[in-house]
Amino acid sequence: MRSLLLLTAAALLIGAAPAKKLLTPTDIVTAAPAAAWKTIAADDLLVLDLKSGGRVVVQLAPAFAPIHVANIKALARGKYWDGATIYRVQDNYVAQWGLNESDKPWPAGVTAKPPAEYTRAYKGLKVTPLGFADPYTPGTGFVDGWPVAYSAKAGWANLAHCYGAVGVGRDLSPDTGTGGELYAAIAPLRHLDRNIAVVGRVIDGIDQLSSLPRGTEALGFYKDKSSFVPIASIRVASDIPAGERPAYEYLNTASASFAAYVRVRANRHDTFYIRPAGGVDLCNVNVPVRKKA
Amino acid sequence: MRSLLLLTAAALLIGAAPAKKLLTPTDIVTAAPAAAWKTIAADDLLVLDLKSGGRVVVQLAPAFAPIHVANIKALARGKYWDGATIYRVQDNYVAQWGLNESDKPWPAGVTAKPPAEYTRAYKGLKVTPLGFADPYTPGTGFVDGWPVAYSAKAGWANLAHCYGAVGVGRDLSPDTGTGGELYAAIAPLRHLDRNIAVVGRVIDGIDQLSSLPRGTEALGFYKDKSSFVPIASIRVASDIPAGERPAYEYLNTASASFAAYVRVRANRHDTFYIRPAGGVDLCNVNVPVRKKA
Repeated sequence: MRSLLLLTAAALLIGAAPAKKLLTPTDIVTAAPAAAWKTIAADDLLVLDLKSGGRVVVQLAPAFAPIHVANIKALARGKYWDGATIYRVQDNYVAQWGLNESDKPWPAGVTAKPPAEYTRAYKGLKVTPLGFADPYTPGTGFVDGWPVAYSAKAGWANLAHCYGAVGVGRDLSPDTGTGGELYAAIAPLRHLDRNIAVVGRVIDGIDQLSSLPRGTEALGFYKDKSSFVPIASIRVASDIPAGERPAYEYLNTASASFAAYVRVRANRHDTFYIRPAGGVDLCNVNVPVRKKA
Repeated sequence: MRSLLLLTAAALLIGAAPAKKLLTPTDIVTAAPAAAWKTIAADDLLVLDLKSGGRVVVQLAPAFAPIHVANIKALARGKYWDGATIYRVQDNYVAQWGLNESDKPWPAGVTAKPPAEYTRAYKGLKVTPLGFADPYTPGTGFVDGWPVAYSAKAGWANLAHCYGAVGVGRDLSPDTGTGGELYAAIAPLRHLDRNIAVVGRVIDGIDQLSSLPRGTEALGFYKDKSSFVPIASIRVASDIPAGERPAYEYLNTASASFAAYVRVRANRHDTFYIRPAGGVDLCNVNVPVRKKA
């Protein structure tokens, strides 16, 4: 029997849809005016080039973990990661990279024992609330493109461990990690929120991490060094010549376009969907990010 | 600088922990009595063997989608999937397999147009509520090992699209899919709940799907047939000779051990964690399943 494309296949068929077209999230993002997009500063982009030719781009979050982010820039600029690899991929959990068990000294400008930047003050943040219940925190929403969890009452906020979140590997407390070993969440891991410094998120090339073979040792560490995935370079985009530098923009999470996008994510009603959920969880919203020409 | 194992590394160090040991979720599962485990019937296990040598095992859910599950057994027994492949892997979404665009006739016993088994009656289910807020549905919890969402008031319940959920590919409504094309969720996809028949979940070998290269065509379809991942066989475990047949058991979700496990998943307090979340979402609970000797 002939069969079906399934799921979001509907989005492809929509060109043939009747007059009163029901918008998909993609339709809303495509129609968003230029003014609804915000460029990410080149100084806040970390570009990982794999020896395989793949590229992973991380947007850094200095507003949430300033000292760890400063460390990461100093590590990149000080060539700390020369010879770095991806040495751990745990299914439904994380992909982790760095030098692993190394005695290499920190480059200049690295704070060896940063404070625990696991939350920041709620005060001073302009939050666009998500508006749906959350099992982990009193509030969830978006700040300047970032998914955040917070307690307005207790006065804290944190970057949420959604898919693609980049965090700082650490040993047991009081260690807070320097930034030398980083991981990307390849699943939502909200239970780690407020226990680790989240320093950014993968905005391009997450599949270069998520599709890697899983490590067979405990916690997904690769057993043999021959399995380690070599990294050619880790650079801050502002250090890359302007003509070669990648650039990205995200949909302003305070914009009307983003509000419409969230509404439709929570109430999918295009041709494929029969029963809209009426809600969506923070990590299933996926803030739109796209490459700039 | 020497660096860190991170995250659940704490679990490995716990042997050296002080007298008042704080239990991890794994500790609770390991300590659960034999009576807290329930064997999965061999007739409810679908065994996919890949030509690569990898194996993916799916537990079927006849209590939620009886006609689609009966179809799947008839398809396996009628050798419908001879020559089947994994032909679609969309990052943070699904891995999908079957014959794709095929005109092969259905084997005997297949209902060509099953009803929309997207929900079932709430009545008759013994639900163990999760007890935390959910953005999608009034209620979430567990029924006989399965993560479910429900509205007691409206009278429906559905299997939740958590990581590993297996659903039936379908075309636009009124098509409901037969079961010939199946997908496994490689991310939580709760927005698909009640829009597709969920027929089971991957209980072993999900990494064989989640680590595959992502398809480069729209919706993650592989561009070239040479990228398709060939499947050697798809069998119901009860059709495999008893000595070769894999067997699994799951932690009874109505047991005291499971209740303790959920409590600790929601309040991680072992040596690595500083701030327990105080809640957990349905799809982050992960019902423990293990192979039987």
